[in-house]
Amino acid sequence: MNHPLKNYGMDTYRFPVDPWKIIENSFSNSDYGKTETLFTVANGYIGMRANPEEGREAHTHGTFINGFHETWRIKHAEEAFGYAKIGQTIVNVPDAKLIKLYVDDEPFLLSHADLDEYERVLDFRSGVLSRNIEWRTPAGRRISIKSQRMVSFEHRHLAMMTYEVRTLDHKASIVISSQLLNRQDGEDEYYVPSAALGEGTDPRKASRFDHRVLEPRLQRHEKDDIILGYRCNNSKMTIACGYRHLVAAPSEYKIENMVNKDYAKSVIKVQLEKGQSLKIVKLVAYHTSTGVPAEELADRCQRTLECASADGSKKLFDGQKQWLAEFWENSDIEIDGDLQSQQAIRWNLFQLAQATGRAQENGIAAKGVTSSAYEGHYFWDTEIYLLPFLAYTNPEMARKLLRFRWQMLPSARERAKELNQKGALYPWRTINGQEASAYYAAGTAQYHINAAIAYALKKYYNATGDFDFLSKEGAHILIETARLWEDLGFFSEEQGKTSFHIHRVTGPDEYTTVVNDNFYTNVMARFNLDYAMKTMQSIKEKKPEIYEALCRETGLSSEELEKWRKASELMYLPYDEKRKIHPQDANFLDLEPWNFKDTPQEKFPLLLHYHPLVIYRHQVLKQADVVLALFLHGEMFSIEEKRRDFDFYDPITTGDSSLSVCVQSIVAAQIGYKELAAQYFQRALYLDLMDLHGNTADGVHVASAAGVWAVIVYGFAGFVDKGESIYFIPKLPLDWKSVSFKLKRNKSLLQVNLEKNRCTVLVLKGTDVCFEKEGKSVFLNSGENIVYQET
Amino acid sequence: MNHPLKNYGMDTYRFPVDPWKIIENSFSNSDYGKTETLFTVANGYIGMRANPEEGREAHTHGTFINGFHETWRIKHAEEAFGYAKIGQTIVNVPDAKLIKLYVDDEPFLLSHADLDEYERVLDFRSGVLSRNIEWRTPAGRRISIKSQRMVSFEHRHLAMMTYEVRTLDHKASIVISSQLLNRQDGEDEYYVPSAALGEGTDPRKASRFDHRVLEPRLQRHEKDDIILGYRCNNSKMTIACGYRHLVAAPSEYKIENMVNKDYAKSVIKVQLEKGQSLKIVKLVAYHTSTGVPAEELADRCQRTLECASADGSKKLFDGQKQWLAEFWENSDIEIDGDLQSQQAIRWNLFQLAQATGRAQENGIAAKGVTSSAYEGHYFWDTEIYLLPFLAYTNPEMARKLLRFRWQMLPSARERAKELNQKGALYPWRTINGQEASAYYAAGTAQYHINAAIAYALKKYYNATGDFDFLSKEGAHILIETARLWEDLGFFSEEQGKTSFHIHRVTGPDEYTTVVNDNFYTNVMARFNLDYAMKTMQSIKEKKPEIYEALCRETGLSSEELEKWRKASELMYLPYDEKRKIHPQDANFLDLEPWNFKDTPQEKFPLLLHYHPLVIYRHQVLKQADVVLALFLHGEMFSIEEKRRDFDFYDPITTGDSSLSVCVQSIVAAQIGYKELAAQYFQRALYLDLMDLHGNTADGVHVASAAGVWAVIVYGFAGFVDKGESIYFIPKLPLDWKSVSFKLKRNKSLLQVNLEKNRCTVLVLKGTDVCFEKEGKSVFLNSGENIVYQET
Repeated sequence: MNHPLKNYGMDTYRFPVDPWKIIENSFSNSDYGKTETLFTVANGYIGMRANPEEGREAHTHGTFINGFHETWRIKHAEEAFGYAKIGQTIVNVPDAKLIKLYVDDEPFLLSHADLDEYERVLDFRSGVLSRNIEWRTPAGRRISIKSQRMVSFEHRHLAMMTYEVRTLDHKASIVISSQLLNRQDGEDEYYVPSAALGEGTDPRKASRFDHRVLEPRLQRHEKDDIILGYRCNNSKMTIACGYRHLVAAPSEYKIENMVNKDYAKSVIKVQLEKGQSLKIVKLVAYHTSTGVPAEELADRCQRTLECASADGSKKLFDGQKQWLAEFWENSDIEIDGDLQSQQAIRWNLFQLAQATGRAQENGIAAKGVTSSAYEGHYFWDTEIYLLPFLAYTNPEMARKLLRFRWQMLPSARERAKELNQKGALYPWRTINGQEASAYYAAGTAQYHINAAIAYALKKYYNATGDFDFLSKEGAHILIETARLWEDLGFFSEEQGKTSFHIHRVTGPDEYTTVVNDNFYTNVMARFNLDYAMKTMQSIKEKKPEIYEALCRETGLSSEELEKWRKASELMYLPYDEKRKIHPQDANFLDLEPWNFKDTPQEKFPLLLHYHPLVIYRHQVLKQADVVLALFLHGEMFSIEEKRRDFDFYDPITTGDSSLSVCVQSIVAAQIGYKELAAQYFQRALYLDLMDLHGNTADGVHVASAAGVWAVIVYGFAGFVDKGESIYFIPKLPLDWKSVSFKLKRNKSLLQVNLEKNRCTVLVLKGTDVCFEKEGKSVFLNSGENIVYQET
Repeated sequence: MNHPLKNYGMDTYRFPVDPWKIIENSFSNSDYGKTETLFTVANGYIGMRANPEEGREAHTHGTFINGFHETWRIKHAEEAFGYAKIGQTIVNVPDAKLIKLYVDDEPFLLSHADLDEYERVLDFRSGVLSRNIEWRTPAGRRISIKSQRMVSFEHRHLAMMTYEVRTLDHKASIVISSQLLNRQDGEDEYYVPSAALGEGTDPRKASRFDHRVLEPRLQRHEKDDIILGYRCNNSKMTIACGYRHLVAAPSEYKIENMVNKDYAKSVIKVQLEKGQSLKIVKLVAYHTSTGVPAEELADRCQRTLECASADGSKKLFDGQKQWLAEFWENSDIEIDGDLQSQQAIRWNLFQLAQATGRAQENGIAAKGVTSSAYEGHYFWDTEIYLLPFLAYTNPEMARKLLRFRWQMLPSARERAKELNQKGALYPWRTINGQEASAYYAAGTAQYHINAAIAYALKKYYNATGDFDFLSKEGAHILIETARLWEDLGFFSEEQGKTSFHIHRVTGPDEYTTVVNDNFYTNVMARFNLDYAMKTMQSIKEKKPEIYEALCRETGLSSEELEKWRKASELMYLPYDEKRKIHPQDANFLDLEPWNFKDTPQEKFPLLLHYHPLVIYRHQVLKQADVVLALFLHGEMFSIEEKRRDFDFYDPITTGDSSLSVCVQSIVAAQIGYKELAAQYFQRALYLDLMDLHGNTADGVHVASAAGVWAVIVYGFAGFVDKGESIYFIPKLPLDWKSVSFKLKRNKSLLQVNLEKNRCTVLVLKGTDVCFEKEGKSVFLNSGENIVYQET
């Protein structure tokens, strides 16, 4: 890493420290992209960026629904066989966040308003974003405006807003215009009609559509409900969204409704005396589908609104609290002795809840539902970064994600065939299961996604012991992924030694692409083949009838298992005898070193400032690649090996990928580089909170947020799960009194308490939990604990 | 090469053999794409595909002007820094070929007509395409239709058509509608409005525009001339095209003119008695410019038409003959004993005249001016394949082409900078000097184009001794290309040996890309550095004032020359000790062999049936890559070395590139593989005539046509030009009595006569021409000859 190391932490003047909240106590227009992301509310299905209720200036007026996407034909500047054909982009759905206020005919505009008080708080326990404002109107009247926004974890399709206006020193005429706006056709700069797809030069941002995406299908105004329905032009996905108001006013009020194709509003007018208040509760419902007509979705919206209305806001707020109480019960990491880190850790964990909570049968996009960056695509980081967190805190959700990949198998088989391979090849980027990566060198060539899914499956199985899933959905995933590897690679003999090679692939590090024998890929493929083979053997032993069915359905045979064994055993892993390190790929060490000395800070990330060929020609990393393999398969490598590799790669790793620093921190911790481990941890912790990558405006880096959990659990506590047993190798590099967190594991519940130099694990629930310590197995029951000393 | 070898030759029933013509004696609609190409008339500036005068069914109603192109923003499906931004596509200009005939109100439609006679002839000496038809009209009347079409070599901007209708057995009412049609907006299928760019899956075809390209700027009808003027929407290039008729009728005739924005026509009506004829001469002018207003171009058109009109058709036909007489005088290859090959060879040579004749300050596109395939772009094959032919037959044209590259230096410097390199980087594909290759892996990464230009410069200098050009334009090219190589590569030490490496480049063979130390590239870069260095030293000695000026202008120094020397001397050339061959790149031998056995014929060319990753992963070649280096730098390698390399690469070379077989033939001849040399030669010879690549419809493969010349001169006659001297190593593999051709060389003119086992070179002009024979120099004067025996 070549950036200077420094101390991290948010600006506590504007964002004061609180262990359970993120707070903004003064308004600023200078970084609204970032704060829209940081204060987003979401439940893994619906995501609402923190745009002010009043609309207007924004980076993105974003509301996103997980998996709700439009498709479009990818236009390759130069075509070739097998290139991805169908682009998929998450759609910015109609915006229900808008609640505009007029006092005595003067609009309330946050950016111009004369404010006596401003506070915005996102509370991680209540799951509510609230804003508290005192406004001195142009006419000098003082008005209190309190609003709340929540996307319900309890009710997947529901969001709720409250908006309360109180006159403080005078009577006033109040108008509230609450809206539902489909912005696609011009109002929102983000969607420039007829702008070309892919015109930006930052490939990480979303494409822009060049056609009208949402075709209006219905406008409904029944009783208190206003609902708009649409269908995506190409993907034919349908959506309905609607709202209902509960109004509490001290006197008679008028309400006028307007419903158009792209615009619905309800205008509420009331006259307030001094000290009186108007409060509205806006219930909002979103339903989406791949095929159900908008009409039916509209009915569902009405039912959602009806139920919510029956519950009332208090009950809904309580339900949110309760859901989150359970989340924190399982997932919290408590820090003693560092409030600021505590706040940042909880913000990251809260993002994981917001990304995954009610994602259900969908994947988890790189940015969750906080933005359309990366087109809302699902990548490998779900499996490698996020899934371990879920496996040990919310295994049911981990299972759903794996099932989601299982459901994708038919497309993945098709894709493998198109790429001339057997088995299945998972798409590098996708929403609907088809490959959507338009640049194969840093897309389709990343075959390692296959192994990432197999790896996540093992994590899940180790954490849960769910043999049923492993032997059904899991087995199919393993068979097809192993098949691909066996077919993709080939045996070759060199100096009398036969090895299995995998050529022309790209590892996680995208600063070299289409290389031979990428170390990470080969390590992962070896694991995938071996795990598939062993799992099949174990199914054969434990459930012969299932094994036979698998053989019938997939053509599996013992000869094939033997092939996997052989490929796995003879897998070539590059090793440089002279330097005693693992080259990132067979020819990485032949490359010219990058000239870091003469590369100014503003030239990072390199991908935005150098042609790919220039980058590929040099020894320079976007992210820790070998080091990630050392982490994921830590048991295969000695501390000395890890240290040598780390010493070689760390100075040439730019960390231009947000997936990098958490991994660097974990391995740094493991090899005893405490200072570095702490620095990298901070960098992961504040990656979004301090906008360290300059693109927090484009959404939360969900994998990095999960990486924060991984650093503490795997890096600092040194958690190792061998399946049959677990153990810890604590290495706390930070000056914290203690860290504690829980792990759900295979019907047991563990409380881990990490202190300077040691780690105590208490069995909260479970019997005969098998720990390994000093080479021996130790079985503990509920109430017992075990201590691991730092070595 | 894995295709079965077979005997070649056109279908002589439909295309009878003639040593100086290509003849089609029966009409067919089944292969009009191919015949449109084969019977094209062109002069290197204007090209007219052989669409029938009557229009209608066509593969492409093509008229192309060298360099006349539209630009468009390249939309990359996934953007990255430094990608080519501006696409450039040759424009199909308004079609003046149309002359429609109506007899007694019945249209003459070739595809439906009841023909008593049909013959189409392209005469290589007259340079005229003529058609002779006897038509039995629907009413049973017999009509003779004779037409001719010529694009003038003498008058660059002129084309001429004649159309003569004679009643054979009856009187008839004759209407001729002679047209000028801008087809871009719909009539021609080839341009589908609003079709997306790059939608086809064959990357070799031209893109389609998604906008109106030619904006009408003027419609002029003055006296006998009708002229339309346009400007390209983006590139702002201008064009005017117009026509004038000379009518010869036996009785009074009527003429009506119509001029619209995209359509002009002149309708001539006459009543013919039995045996009478109507003859029109249609003079056509095209003028284009990068900036001159269409008005001025229209004036130029009028002047062209005026002059042509003053000359009259006979004089114009004579001028054409005369120009071609000179061409054949310098460029003919005469075969004794094989009429069919003679015809095919002359067809290929004639294509070279048609591609280059009046190209003047333009480049030569891959398809000349016969099609818009490859967007009408200029590639490296101009320098490597075409320029040697020109250097020894028409050195002035060779000089122009090099000057064209010299003029491109500012853009090439800019491009190098964008790619983070010093010096200049020539665009892989271009018309206007900017890189237009949208796929860098098989585009920009082909840095070897730099050395191709330096190589052509050396060829030109050896052939002409034009030190003036070498020390001025040439020196700048050499300095900037050498600079790029020196900066692109780097020194690295292995086992105590320092070598200069060039990484992440693509050689001529595009079936592996972005490789390290491509043998061809390194051989060529070594030459480029060495030749630049030695040329600078020679300029310093011979013309110190020029050398000093160069140092001043370019910052050249003796230190820099020393760097070039070092890089050149230490250039790493991959060599495999075990197999004793030159690996195509540093890691080529590590790849898995392609499974040719299980690849059916219909899967070739591989690029249309396999994802690039699949191809790149295997030992399989699109074209001879190492073998090309062995040819271009034949003096560096022994026959044994060549044979070993050839033996290794030839079986894995698909020849999917049309640039391959001629090179394979040359080297096969040199190493004594006569049978193979003959077979590959035939394949090059009939590549278009027999449509062996299935895409002759998309234009003439100009480089392959030049390759035919190269096989005979370099392969069969074994011509070697060392600069100070020349010699021959004859190896005639075909059963010809003799082959003879001329070479212009440095003020001398040589007649080479190649027979079985020997080659006689007669000095037709010149004094003290230095030959090398058996290690000694032999100086000959005009009238003397030297004999080289086959060894």
